[in-house]
Amino acid sequence: MALPSFQLWLLLLLLAANNAFAVHPRKLAKFSTNVKRFAASGDSFGLPPEFEIHYYTQTLDHFNYKPESYDTFQQRYILNYKYWGGANNSSPIFVYTGEEDDVTYDVDAITDLAARFKGLLLYIEHRYYGESMPFGSEDQAFQNSSTLGYFSSEQALADYAQVVTDVKKNLSAENCPAIAVGASYGGMLASWFRLKYPHIVIGALASSSPILYFDDITPQNGYHVVVTKDFKETSESCYNTIIQSWPEIDRVAAEPNGLLTLSNKFNTCRTLNSSKELKDRLAISYISAAQYDNPPYYPVQNICHAIDGAPEGTDILGRVAAGLHRYPGQGCVNIFSFELSNKSGWDWQTCTEIVMPIGYGDNETMFQAEPFDLKNYTRDCVNCFGVVPRPHWVTTEFGGHDIKTVLGNFASNIIFSNGLRDPWSSGGVLEDISDSVVAIHTEYGAHCADLFPSSPDDPVWLVEQREKEVKIIAVWIAEYYAKLSTKERSV
Amino acid sequence: MALPSFQLWLLLLLLAANNAFAVHPRKLAKFSTNVKRFAASGDSFGLPPEFEIHYYTQTLDHFNYKPESYDTFQQRYILNYKYWGGANNSSPIFVYTGEEDDVTYDVDAITDLAARFKGLLLYIEHRYYGESMPFGSEDQAFQNSSTLGYFSSEQALADYAQVVTDVKKNLSAENCPAIAVGASYGGMLASWFRLKYPHIVIGALASSSPILYFDDITPQNGYHVVVTKDFKETSESCYNTIIQSWPEIDRVAAEPNGLLTLSNKFNTCRTLNSSKELKDRLAISYISAAQYDNPPYYPVQNICHAIDGAPEGTDILGRVAAGLHRYPGQGCVNIFSFELSNKSGWDWQTCTEIVMPIGYGDNETMFQAEPFDLKNYTRDCVNCFGVVPRPHWVTTEFGGHDIKTVLGNFASNIIFSNGLRDPWSSGGVLEDISDSVVAIHTEYGAHCADLFPSSPDDPVWLVEQREKEVKIIAVWIAEYYAKLSTKERSV
Repeated sequence: MALPSFQLWLLLLLLAANNAFAVHPRKLAKFSTNVKRFAASGDSFGLPPEFEIHYYTQTLDHFNYKPESYDTFQQRYILNYKYWGGANNSSPIFVYTGEEDDVTYDVDAITDLAARFKGLLLYIEHRYYGESMPFGSEDQAFQNSSTLGYFSSEQALADYAQVVTDVKKNLSAENCPAIAVGASYGGMLASWFRLKYPHIVIGALASSSPILYFDDITPQNGYHVVVTKDFKETSESCYNTIIQSWPEIDRVAAEPNGLLTLSNKFNTCRTLNSSKELKDRLAISYISAAQYDNPPYYPVQNICHAIDGAPEGTDILGRVAAGLHRYPGQGCVNIFSFELSNKSGWDWQTCTEIVMPIGYGDNETMFQAEPFDLKNYTRDCVNCFGVVPRPHWVTTEFGGHDIKTVLGNFASNIIFSNGLRDPWSSGGVLEDISDSVVAIHTEYGAHCADLFPSSPDDPVWLVEQREKEVKIIAVWIAEYYAKLSTKERSV
Repeated sequence: MALPSFQLWLLLLLLAANNAFAVHPRKLAKFSTNVKRFAASGDSFGLPPEFEIHYYTQTLDHFNYKPESYDTFQQRYILNYKYWGGANNSSPIFVYTGEEDDVTYDVDAITDLAARFKGLLLYIEHRYYGESMPFGSEDQAFQNSSTLGYFSSEQALADYAQVVTDVKKNLSAENCPAIAVGASYGGMLASWFRLKYPHIVIGALASSSPILYFDDITPQNGYHVVVTKDFKETSESCYNTIIQSWPEIDRVAAEPNGLLTLSNKFNTCRTLNSSKELKDRLAISYISAAQYDNPPYYPVQNICHAIDGAPEGTDILGRVAAGLHRYPGQGCVNIFSFELSNKSGWDWQTCTEIVMPIGYGDNETMFQAEPFDLKNYTRDCVNCFGVVPRPHWVTTEFGGHDIKTVLGNFASNIIFSNGLRDPWSSGGVLEDISDSVVAIHTEYGAHCADLFPSSPDDPVWLVEQREKEVKIIAVWIAEYYAKLSTKERSV
């Protein structure tokens, strides 16, 4: 494959720990984006030739009828016919519901499924990401809240409905069962797509999708509790060192020239302005390691190996510095701001509807307390975008409370897959809801491992996880064909 | 009851056949509105005291985040606690999903259900109808397509989700199962509400809801074929007379002073400008009679009795004129235009998303051919509102094609009720989709008969239809309580 695989991206990430990351909890959701954006940057035109790029003239506003609602933009989608059995065989269509990123970075996510089921691959880019920009360009689209205003999950789902319908029509593939697959936020979209548009997709595979991390459904500290557990289970001493490091950093910072001392000790590329800058930088490295604690690199082990393996007599700060500088030949550590950016699509989404209340009090995690504060959260959004978040909207629109009661006799054909080492699994669906709305989770996996392309080195639990998913999808398709044949016989 | 019942409305309608009606097929959907609006006009403040009027500060635009999306308006809803068992008993809430009308006209529609199940009654007015006007007033709201632009079914459903959530919260009634009930377009909303918001309502009763009269799902002539069948079954000679009347009208109209002759013969309140005016006027009387061919008045019989019962020797035109003048003491017949009105909410809806392709060719019905013509339809909408209809949007957003395949293993707890004498039943769901998404229809009923308040004179088939519905709803509620008690035990 010409594109870097997820693993390679991860490797690149870990090798380049001075990449720009946001540590503030509200920014965590965009992690997967950052990981991929960094790693794949400059690679988006290197698509193998079997991936065809197309554009659909998309309606700007599906739900209103104002004059400007009728404006259109070019939405990018990608087709790959390589594995497809064709419309005559009613072969399936795998619809990748693009998440918060350039969709070309995702093209190897579901090729294994297509190969297995003779599927057509259809990757749809989410509006306001990649090239799918309303108003002609990213600059125009991100001008202000009037141009960004059409940027919502509901509009994105309606976009997907339009594109799938159009592609099916163009290929005379109306009888081909479509199945939505998505990762992280894209997996939330996949499951919501099945729930809201069951006439468009017969099922959905939602990988690592924290659809319950809204409102008061999930404990706010869920994310960081899992990060903490990952570290503690990997190494109790590593975990203890990290816990002890925070007050130690504060103590040194309070000394005369303390920030300079810390800057030297951690080899930061510029002098620190506050101890918080350093603590955020450390936190992001732990958090990203936990979120992507997948084979074959297992970055949590990696960090803890560096922390625990520092020469005897190394002090607490020396150990956590070693964790940050765990790669050979690594240069200085970049320090950066965690402010919201009015050029970030994901920041916009967290400032409007994707309000995940992530926070934690004292002694709940291995981090210093950082409670969720809707007031500050809202103030930041108003300052950055001029918008007020709607923190209760997602549960009103998509549900989530009492999900087992609500969906126990409603809906069908959804897989919620999670790796329990993924901090996002804390907001995921981890329990079967019904016979066909099921949870698959692995003790060892982290974020989206099942959607990485398979490799001969994959551990057994990952092979088994994928095989379970394939078996379930096979049932969906078989049931669909059974109904189709009944219908055709009755015509 | 202080309010006129549906039957009374119908009676008033039939006694006052010179009321303003639109005959053009695109306007038929608003029939129920017209019937009720006429009959109940001036009565909206005559609500019995147990009906409490409330207002909810509703978001103008749920799906976008433009500055103006955050505007609000006062949405009216009505509560009636008379029958309610209370939040402590988790007694149900019946949510009337308001249709294209002032919601105060509907308050007796579901009182029987509330009485039966100790239900709270909650009637929610549809945005842009009654008093629920964005921009402060009807005049402001109907100014142009910029102010009307937020007027869509999706926004209305989201409104309902917000109101139900808010009412439950205010009453600490989160554990009370809510059930949506709606009539005609409101029934479409009730079923879509259950499909899109299963976390808000545990089930839906959709009475006389032609959710399949979109796109190419239902034959375009369905509506008029049922009207025709109603007349033919009632009286073959009446039916034949009507068929023969159209060319006869054209023939007379073509004579010197023909329109004057016709005006005199039919006692029109003003001289006819075309034979079409008369034919439309006759058609509307047949259509309305068929749509509301319910007990105890059975207007089709009534018309046919007048046509067939005219003195021997009466010519064709004399007979159909007798049909039009079948009430004692009736004055002249009003003739009016069938143009779209930019003050009509329903016309707006038919010009945006509620595009029901109703039309018919030669000899398919008892009417002269009037094929559906999307081009003309669109032109009229552009002229009236400056908007272009989206004729395929409803099936993309809400489905409808292959409904049995799609919903066979998806969704639950929906009743689609229809009376087969109702022309709208042609676009209704008439076949069970699954064990719990079921169709109930009666051979004799017409539009929304099951939601009229019961009367000791109701025929057996109507009593049985309602009893079936009640039994099914009882199962929904029992299943919900069973789950609730499991949940509470496990807490």
